[in-house]
Amino acid sequence: MPIETPLLYESKGSPNARRVRFFVAEKGIEIARTAIDLGSKEQFSDAFKAVNPRMQVPALQLADGTVITEVPAIWRYLEETYPHEPLLGVTAKSKALVTMWERRAELDGFASVMEAVRNALPGLKGRALSGPHDYEQIPALVERSKQRVSNFFADFNARLESVPFVAGNDFSAADITTLVTVDFAASALKMPISETHQSFKKWYERISSRPASSA
Amino acid sequence: MPIETPLLYESKGSPNARRVRFFVAEKGIEIARTAIDLGSKEQFSDAFKAVNPRMQVPALQLADGTVITEVPAIWRYLEETYPHEPLLGVTAKSKALVTMWERRAELDGFASVMEAVRNALPGLKGRALSGPHDYEQIPALVERSKQRVSNFFADFNARLESVPFVAGNDFSAADITTLVTVDFAASALKMPISETHQSFKKWYERISSRPASSA
Repeated sequence: MPIETPLLYESKGSPNARRVRFFVAEKGIEIARTAIDLGSKEQFSDAFKAVNPRMQVPALQLADGTVITEVPAIWRYLEETYPHEPLLGVTAKSKALVTMWERRAELDGFASVMEAVRNALPGLKGRALSGPHDYEQIPALVERSKQRVSNFFADFNARLESVPFVAGNDFSAADITTLVTVDFAASALKMPISETHQSFKKWYERISSRPASSA
Repeated sequence: MPIETPLLYESKGSPNARRVRFFVAEKGIEIARTAIDLGSKEQFSDAFKAVNPRMQVPALQLADGTVITEVPAIWRYLEETYPHEPLLGVTAKSKALVTMWERRAELDGFASVMEAVRNALPGLKGRALSGPHDYEQIPALVERSKQRVSNFFADFNARLESVPFVAGNDFSAADITTLVTVDFAASALKMPISETHQSFKKWYERISSRPASSA
């Protein structure tokens, strides 16, 4: 079915979808959306598989039918199409620093939380990795992933002792991924920011008070 | 010590450094380089830790002293600074597609090869993940990672049945990561492209014949 504007497939329960909602809300743009109900496993339906064979949200369907998946790819499309309120940097250097810090937040933080969750939850037996292929859980990964989350908290606290935002002087997508990671760790792993990480806590209070953070 | 142009810290033996060398050679730009000898563990030296506390190559030091790490971040800096011969896409849509496919090549392919290698090599005991923190190897990960590499080969063969390059009609950074992954899997895991994956093999012959691939 042809569409006239991009259509975002997302889900309230998906931390990756939240990264896109937060980004869209910071830019103040309006995008058509449709909710995929992960609770009833709608991502595995034939209708959604026809949109995204990887069975993952978020996914952004363009007017010509092209489907963009992967959060940084959806962000890139939105940043290029709606360049006001830039969230991926402005100069060559700031673009590189946002890419670098957002990636550290994702690979050290977000992905570690996800790995701990997916290798532990009984409901995800045989589905340790999201996507088109089935993989068995590896229980030994759960503890190692939690160690990684702890190290992520310490590393980012140290970073935020010297800069106001994760990538430096300006709010960016790196703050979005970091905030979503913190909330995900607190809810899914019961690992909140420690009281000893005061710089990280102060950053969290500032960023979570942005209206877009609850989009 | 102040420098006048960017300085690339790299290593012949690092597949991640190869992703940057390949990119630089495709653009035909000249960048000052210094080799870090992974064989003698020079990445752990105090001199290199002062450059990159994460003790990883590649790293790009800018003239103002800023150090950019993470391959996609280094690429972003180079693409913005030297926009000719674009390798990260041109339109909003192609930029998003390059981001998406390059990421799939990295997370499904490259990272799976790396995970299989690092959790198996006796010399990397206690160092299952690169970076500033020590993690124990998890032997069960080795087989799961190899399954992921097999699935990556099948998925990318299917992709390359319908398009000439990984991200679509043009050569891009997605081809660079995919080629480096194929060579890394063949050398480190003895997992070459299967004879049954003819589209992937033909793509490999074309891409590996580009002069920049041996940079």
